[in-house]
Amino acid sequence: MRKVLVVNGSPRGDRSHSRRLVQLFIDQWTAFNPKDIVHYREVGKGNLPHISEDWIAAAFTPPEDRTAEMKETLGLSDRLVDELLWADTIIAGVPMYNWSVPSSFKAYMDQVMRIGRTWKFESGKPDGVYVGLLENKEMYLVSARGDYGYEPNGHNAHMNFQSNYVKLVFGIMGVEDIREVVLENEEYGGEQFSHSIKKAEGRIQQLLSKRFKTLKEPLR
Amino acid sequence: MRKVLVVNGSPRGDRSHSRRLVQLFIDQWTAFNPKDIVHYREVGKGNLPHISEDWIAAAFTPPEDRTAEMKETLGLSDRLVDELLWADTIIAGVPMYNWSVPSSFKAYMDQVMRIGRTWKFESGKPDGVYVGLLENKEMYLVSARGDYGYEPNGHNAHMNFQSNYVKLVFGIMGVEDIREVVLENEEYGGEQFSHSIKKAEGRIQQLLSKRFKTLKEPLR
Repeated sequence: MRKVLVVNGSPRGDRSHSRRLVQLFIDQWTAFNPKDIVHYREVGKGNLPHISEDWIAAAFTPPEDRTAEMKETLGLSDRLVDELLWADTIIAGVPMYNWSVPSSFKAYMDQVMRIGRTWKFESGKPDGVYVGLLENKEMYLVSARGDYGYEPNGHNAHMNFQSNYVKLVFGIMGVEDIREVVLENEEYGGEQFSHSIKKAEGRIQQLLSKRFKTLKEPLR
Repeated sequence: MRKVLVVNGSPRGDRSHSRRLVQLFIDQWTAFNPKDIVHYREVGKGNLPHISEDWIAAAFTPPEDRTAEMKETLGLSDRLVDELLWADTIIAGVPMYNWSVPSSFKAYMDQVMRIGRTWKFESGKPDGVYVGLLENKEMYLVSARGDYGYEPNGHNAHMNFQSNYVKLVFGIMGVEDIREVVLENEEYGGEQFSHSIKKAEGRIQQLLSKRFKTLKEPLR
């Protein structure tokens, strides 16, 4: 029995392609692992607050010295971190907005990058060397992009401030086993986009097949 | 008489180093150009909302087809874009949060990347070629970072998802003349940080001196 955390980062609802692919992934996953527990974390439509000056002061105060007010300030962040610590598997759907993640997903990342909970300095004080505290987790990242060519050596590779960034930060928190499913070409529509959808679905198929070996049926 | 837009991106108030440097910049600027008009846009503490599904639908609907509700949805975005169009000079203070911009500043960037107002597709439909619509503007970016080495060829260059990203997006909107003032080492404090403050102040001095030539007095 695994614990699966689903983080939906799209501000869109039914029109979101990353959400649909994430759900396809989860449906297949649970079909093969019916006892797994799936927990959904809404980010894209969840209106998560930006971290504030008070939040920063509270997070960098040692837990034993925090006032009741500070603890309250960190309440949502603690809940989000608890979910990550709980999970064996993280599946995140994240569209590219203006070459980075949507501000809502950045707010999520700012909320979960917590000193002493998801990362620490190696020496115990600022030293530029980060040690991740999220252990033994695998992550699947479903990236949706309007344009194409953001993969390494692609013509837009230098503009990938989205999945490269997500991988960097989760890697720093200790999640180094990250596989990506990429959906691209959304803004072009038509056959170019249809082809990209098929490719993304095939990639999900391939990842699950590799993960569980027993997967024999096609996704649909 | 120039029009100067100051965008403060730090979630911190008085404790913000980027705010202090931005203000130093502005004080010097206006001392030499007393007739310039300065407009402040609060972003870091301004609690700007994340763009939503409705926002996206409204922004990508041609202006003449927008409903009253759509226009209202875009109200804040329109105001922020108007400020950018108004300005001759943009001075932005942006700290690095988790190797990128704070989510509040990302929300600002998502709000001002407006098709038909700050950028357009070259062919008039999605073609991957962006044409910036902000013309004849200069920008000064005050970047504050906890660590150091994020400049090109620095040991943390590959982790600069902050000023590299801001320059990319403003460049796409047509603001290509961007000079950076970098404050680093904040998390180390002590002499290392003091030295960095002096360096940043010297850089401001150098930029203004170059800009106005008449600047002879040191900053303080």
